[in-house]
Amino acid sequence: MKRDAFDTWALAELDAVESALDARVPHDAPAALGEAMRYGVLDGGKRLRPLLVLAAADAVHGQREAALRAACAVELIHAYSLVHDDLPCMDNDVLRRGKPTAHVRYGVAQAMLAGDAMQALAFEVLTPEGAEVPAGLQARLCGLLARAAGGGGMAGGQAIDLASVGLPLDERALSEMHRKKTGALLQASVLMGAACGSTTAAQWNALAEFGGAIGLAFQVVDDILDATQVSATLGKTAGKDQDSNKPTYVTVLGLDAARAHAESLRHAAHAALDASGLGEVARLRALADRAVDRES
Amino acid sequence: MKRDAFDTWALAELDAVESALDARVPHDAPAALGEAMRYGVLDGGKRLRPLLVLAAADAVHGQREAALRAACAVELIHAYSLVHDDLPCMDNDVLRRGKPTAHVRYGVAQAMLAGDAMQALAFEVLTPEGAEVPAGLQARLCGLLARAAGGGGMAGGQAIDLASVGLPLDERALSEMHRKKTGALLQASVLMGAACGSTTAAQWNALAEFGGAIGLAFQVVDDILDATQVSATLGKTAGKDQDSNKPTYVTVLGLDAARAHAESLRHAAHAALDASGLGEVARLRALADRAVDRES
Repeated sequence: MKRDAFDTWALAELDAVESALDARVPHDAPAALGEAMRYGVLDGGKRLRPLLVLAAADAVHGQREAALRAACAVELIHAYSLVHDDLPCMDNDVLRRGKPTAHVRYGVAQAMLAGDAMQALAFEVLTPEGAEVPAGLQARLCGLLARAAGGGGMAGGQAIDLASVGLPLDERALSEMHRKKTGALLQASVLMGAACGSTTAAQWNALAEFGGAIGLAFQVVDDILDATQVSATLGKTAGKDQDSNKPTYVTVLGLDAARAHAESLRHAAHAALDASGLGEVARLRALADRAVDRES
Repeated sequence: MKRDAFDTWALAELDAVESALDARVPHDAPAALGEAMRYGVLDGGKRLRPLLVLAAADAVHGQREAALRAACAVELIHAYSLVHDDLPCMDNDVLRRGKPTAHVRYGVAQAMLAGDAMQALAFEVLTPEGAEVPAGLQARLCGLLARAAGGGGMAGGQAIDLASVGLPLDERALSEMHRKKTGALLQASVLMGAACGSTTAAQWNALAEFGGAIGLAFQVVDDILDATQVSATLGKTAGKDQDSNKPTYVTVLGLDAARAHAESLRHAAHAALDASGLGEVARLRALADRAVDRES
């Protein structure tokens, strides 16, 4: 896909996601909770997950309203996880998306509550009370998201992360951690998009493979950027994984091998798309490229 | 309903809920996360919310499997909120259900993650992948639970609670806080049970009124117990609301008026059941009594 065509599509979709989030994250949750929630999720981030949802939905001619809601829901889960991850008891970080982290701005207790409320809001967004999204699809999307976010997915990966500080993980253990911590939600983004349309079992499995590969590639590149970029480029504190003695792909594999690993995952992602037999996968392919080629 | 008959029913249902939670909260979430989740939700608590779900489901001849899952899901949300509420950044409490709080046992970061994972698990429990629960009902239950747990419900009430320390709230503001903080999930328990069967709109509204009244009554009684009981009876730290300068029904209304208020809410709850025209409401009526007459 030509870079211009992809960028045009992505910019329009980012606008749509931003508007949808703006409309659905409440201004009026009490005692400034809504303000903290909005701070945590609006105006920031690459929005890779929403774009994956929407590109996957396009590939299967998925329902637009459901896909847009799914895009908002995965971003809410991602954003809540960042708010909680930045708290003093976790990474104790002060900079995120180029701004002070939520707890620096609103206090630790309010930031924790805002994260909690953002998780609930994700499921609220997936379950509109009208007929906008068929009930069966609502249930499917809730199930995919809950499984990706919970103890068997993102939260489980964070627990491994917590427990692994200072430990000499091998590549296998590192990959297990990241498949859960980052990969599960990225993969769920692809599958939630796919659930908005119809697929054969083989197509579903190919998209799951694509999502798994891109999810891991994203984290490998994150580790490379953490080791090679400065904070101003990243919009978050650079070098923090190394400073905090966390195992990363760079510390475990070395920089060159980490770069080669990212390339092989990009290749696997592209191969899965080819194998899917789906027609309109150019945007998904471009998103895999973006996940690997990004500089922040 | 005779006390013995109610107790027999409640004991059997508590067993069923405990077994279902035991089966559904994973042992094997990584890095002891599962252990922390199990610690947070198993072997403790009055389980008022699950009993409300199951009694309401009985009143509308609801589907058993769906009701049992809903009972587990509301308890998971309640238990996660306690784990987070006890954290140092919130109430900083060390005793809960007669045991050390989760963060005392597992550390602050792990306790926060366990709470996060428990919230996700609630939605996972509501969305089984087989045909045990019709998809439409899954979606309905997820929607009711998400709205009760989030910024417009429980988390919003907690934000008001945070912001109101040391403030001279009037009864109206106090009631608004508790309708969200405690009431929303208690009311949702009743409505999730009701959603498992079929009701007329009038019956639904009557059950919503019942749930609202019992939800507020529960908090009024909580405040009375906090002011009048010792920690050993409560299984949690007594007198902490007064110590932390939080407004309570006792500080705002005085003890006698708080007791009278609890009685009037019990009356309103019973009246709503009478007005519902539903046949089998004896258990719901008894649960209202239990919420008001309890000593811990």
